[in-house]
Amino acid sequence: MLVNASPDLPEQLRRSPALYPRGKPRGSPIKAIMLTGAEIDQVAGLLSLREREPFTLRATAPTMALIDQNSMFEVLARDQVERRVEAFDVPCSLPGGLTAELFAVPGKVPLYLEGENPDTLSEANGTAGLELRAGGVRLVFIPGAAAVTASMLDRMACADAVLFDGTLFRDDEMIKTCTGNKTGRRMGHMSIDGESGSLAALAKLSARRIYIHINNTNPILVEGSPERARVTTQGWEVAEDGQEIVL
Amino acid sequence: MLVNASPDLPEQLRRSPALYPRGKPRGSPIKAIMLTGAEIDQVAGLLSLREREPFTLRATAPTMALIDQNSMFEVLARDQVERRVEAFDVPCSLPGGLTAELFAVPGKVPLYLEGENPDTLSEANGTAGLELRAGGVRLVFIPGAAAVTASMLDRMACADAVLFDGTLFRDDEMIKTCTGNKTGRRMGHMSIDGESGSLAALAKLSARRIYIHINNTNPILVEGSPERARVTTQGWEVAEDGQEIVL
Repeated sequence: MLVNASPDLPEQLRRSPALYPRGKPRGSPIKAIMLTGAEIDQVAGLLSLREREPFTLRATAPTMALIDQNSMFEVLARDQVERRVEAFDVPCSLPGGLTAELFAVPGKVPLYLEGENPDTLSEANGTAGLELRAGGVRLVFIPGAAAVTASMLDRMACADAVLFDGTLFRDDEMIKTCTGNKTGRRMGHMSIDGESGSLAALAKLSARRIYIHINNTNPILVEGSPERARVTTQGWEVAEDGQEIVL
Repeated sequence: MLVNASPDLPEQLRRSPALYPRGKPRGSPIKAIMLTGAEIDQVAGLLSLREREPFTLRATAPTMALIDQNSMFEVLARDQVERRVEAFDVPCSLPGGLTAELFAVPGKVPLYLEGENPDTLSEANGTAGLELRAGGVRLVFIPGAAAVTASMLDRMACADAVLFDGTLFRDDEMIKTCTGNKTGRRMGHMSIDGESGSLAALAKLSARRIYIHINNTNPILVEGSPERARVTTQGWEVAEDGQEIVL
């Protein structure tokens, strides 16, 4: 999750902060990056930030260890990009008046470290959710979750907005569509549908709820589909590229 | 450099091969990838090819060692993506009737392995050029070169097309434009201009010559600039996104 420290930027520039060089030939308004894990889709974007612009990189110890072990991330020059290990449930201050806190979410190690049968429900591999607080408002960001724990539910109950793992609608969706041979459960993602799905688990939240991290096999992406109707009828939104969330 | 094994594809599909799923829900016509080095811009794209589509990855020993050492590349499942170490100056056969050969080019280790004063003219760090041959036609691809050796010049003299390092026009270009504090020489790139530049070094080639890997500070990118006129007057082309080269 990127944190843009310039709420006073004109709206059009806030929408595409990476395009705004701030009067310099090159530049970036990104001041901090918090990693919720070390899967490729969570970390590969760092490789595009190698132009010696300063920011702080924050992650749990297991996630930061993987960044440290993969020498290619040394393109983020250590004199410009400070690496800070964050503990779960300890708030930290970010530029722009934001407070951020990583918390444990059941999941598995990244794909590239998996053996045959990875523990997909571990809370010790660094998989995290992120809570952001500012001006009395709370947002909870959980892009990948194998299950919802009581602690996660408590946290989401206090939130104004919840962005939650919407990878698959059904656990066997990739097998049925011939796009993969793994279930959602095997990939460390709870599905939306079913008794143990997120639609049931998060039904009582009062927060604004938005599905994110949606796989391209997930029928909630299809306008007019019964699955999309199921989630929207129950008060969920389906995230869109470039979406702005005002709380 | 990607090798598309389907010369019989309709033209429109050949132009955007990565978009063509071949009648399957997912798919890729990419059968082989040859790496000319392990800088981020040469290898990061591999991380987008993690959908279990088979291809062969070929590189020199030093480059492949870096891929092996960075565990994130294990997303390229070893049962689908064979890694083959290639020696310099030894031809190998690729799908589609292509013959390919990596050869030594003076350069330096990738940015993320640099110390204070890297040897920028080494021929032992795996920096490579690539020659492709098919149907009696030869193409030489050199995206990064710190100098032109006699051996490289011999090879280019036999080529029908040369794609060559056009990173900077002038050695101090990034310093002058306040976009960096390194010279081209320090980055392992000879410049286009000057006595030891590529324009002078490759003036006598009869091959079709195209500048590639052009930094966004390089004035040859500007239509109507004197620098662009200099290179085009001397018979060079300036590469464009999506360009097709017919030999």
